[in-house]
Amino acid sequence: MNELYHWFDLLGVAVFAISGTLIAHNKSMDGFGVIVLASVTAIGGGTIRDLILDVPVFWVSDTSYIITILVAVALTILWLNHRQSFPNYYLQLADAFGLSFFAIMGARKAIMLEVPDTTVVIMAVMTGCFGGVIRDVLAREIPMLLKGELYAITCIAGATLYTQLIHLNVVDELAMIAGGITILLLRLAALRWK
Amino acid sequence: MNELYHWFDLLGVAVFAISGTLIAHNKSMDGFGVIVLASVTAIGGGTIRDLILDVPVFWVSDTSYIITILVAVALTILWLNHRQSFPNYYLQLADAFGLSFFAIMGARKAIMLEVPDTTVVIMAVMTGCFGGVIRDVLAREIPMLLKGELYAITCIAGATLYTQLIHLNVVDELAMIAGGITILLLRLAALRWK
Amino acid sequence: MNELYHWFDLLGVAVFAISGTLIAHNKSMDGFGVIVLASVTAIGGGTIRDLILDVPVFWVSDTSYIITILVAVALTILWLNHRQSFPNYYLQLADAFGLSFFAIMGARKAIMLEVPDTTVVIMAVMTGCFGGVIRDVLAREIPMLLKGELYAITCIAGATLYTQLIHLNVVDELAMIAGGITILLLRLAALRWK
Repeated sequence: MNELYHWFDLLGVAVFAISGTLIAHNKSMDGFGVIVLASVTAIGGGTIRDLILDVPVFWVSDTSYIITILVAVALTILWLNHRQSFPNYYLQLADAFGLSFFAIMGARKAIMLEVPDTTVVIMAVMTGCFGGVIRDVLAREIPMLLKGELYAITCIAGATLYTQLIHLNVVDELAMIAGGITILLLRLAALRWK
Repeated sequence: MNELYHWFDLLGVAVFAISGTLIAHNKSMDGFGVIVLASVTAIGGGTIRDLILDVPVFWVSDTSYIITILVAVALTILWLNHRQSFPNYYLQLADAFGLSFFAIMGARKAIMLEVPDTTVVIMAVMTGCFGGVIRDVLAREIPMLLKGELYAITCIAGATLYTQLIHLNVVDELAMIAGGITILLLRLAALRWK
Repeated sequence: MNELYHWFDLLGVAVFAISGTLIAHNKSMDGFGVIVLASVTAIGGGTIRDLILDVPVFWVSDTSYIITILVAVALTILWLNHRQSFPNYYLQLADAFGLSFFAIMGARKAIMLEVPDTTVVIMAVMTGCFGGVIRDVLAREIPMLLKGELYAITCIAGATLYTQLIHLNVVDELAMIAGGITILLLRLAALRWK
């Protein structure tokens, strides 16, 4: 089961690395700048979460995250060299999956430390959104998180549902799926009717 | 006594949350962006301090800080909806109180860990000023801290006085009051004759 | 030997503090803003490294770093008041020395914690480059790191060489010198033929 989580986690990292690569490409950054921007987008939120929760930072002892980022960046750049643009719709779809998984994984890590519910929800938002905030700050954009777009709100809704289900003694996997699907559906709805 | 500190601490958080809300309002941010900007202003400095001192981050296990921020943001937005503007003079007054309390609380936390005096003073400046730095970076302003305005200098003066009084075995409460009033008066003087 | 490391470390801090001071001067910042910008440039990268590796932040218990920064800032401002400009060539030379030493010291700190090689290299890059990233974010420049200039790449090359030599049981001092000289020469070559 834990291995399944890990694979989903890597999927989220890959999706966010792609989104960072695309923004770096739009800003005409070079090879290494792309990797930095992709990395902070993919692992920045989880890094801040782990620092604040005072647990070991997740990627320090596990190279699979960095390798995933490098592969995602390489494939994205290859794609961009051949096609010039990236199908925005699929990226947003993938981003919605990444967001929901990151947020629920962040909430789960916090709830296991038995912090208050508000902190659990904050950690979900941080894990899901703060990588994007650092990305936007480095790329000198106004952080998307601050402009709204029904992004963080979906994390709050899903993480709150997850937390309440855990308190009701719902089994962990079910609560994660319920919370994650909530975020995913809200995010897709926001994209559809924005 | 510790409870009294806690109330003053919350007062500082409220004041800085209001200042973050006002800046977010000027930047036409939406509901959630306002909460993020208010939060980083109010608890960002203390968070960095706790990370660097390697002590538990103060708001992780104590929900009163987050609740204070939410209430402060809600009341400020209510006010802005009715009056359109905020009395700048009262905000600056409140900010001076918040700054002096944050700085001295930061210095106190550092001095209890028996770090060198320079580190104590740095922690006072970080606690008092770095929330505002993150706020300005996210809102894409040149950080006020870098532009001067006799802001951080007042923290250095007050925290240095506090540290020296503690070394002279002055009782903690007296040293805090002396340091805090120093910051408050210097800040008010700076506002008066700038 | 450890004392020798410490002196080289302080040399790196001084060089990066000078570079931060020069940028602050170009932005017409005042006294305290200069110190903040010089400090984040000099110790920001190492601070993030220590936080992520979960070891005590290096300057918290050792005042020599802060004193070095203050002296470097004071001397640089004195120089600027007399000469108006700073010999860019010597600064770049000093920066190349600072970069190579910071990167290898960062790699060494990581390798002693027995983290994977990729993390060792990342820590070398963070120590050498992230102070400059924070400096550029605060000064509202696009971070130099993202624009390329063959800066971080040199850290990756030197840190990788250092890591491999350590795995080959080369004595620590020799591996450090080899890695450091690699960074230095690559950086000087980049400056010469850019």
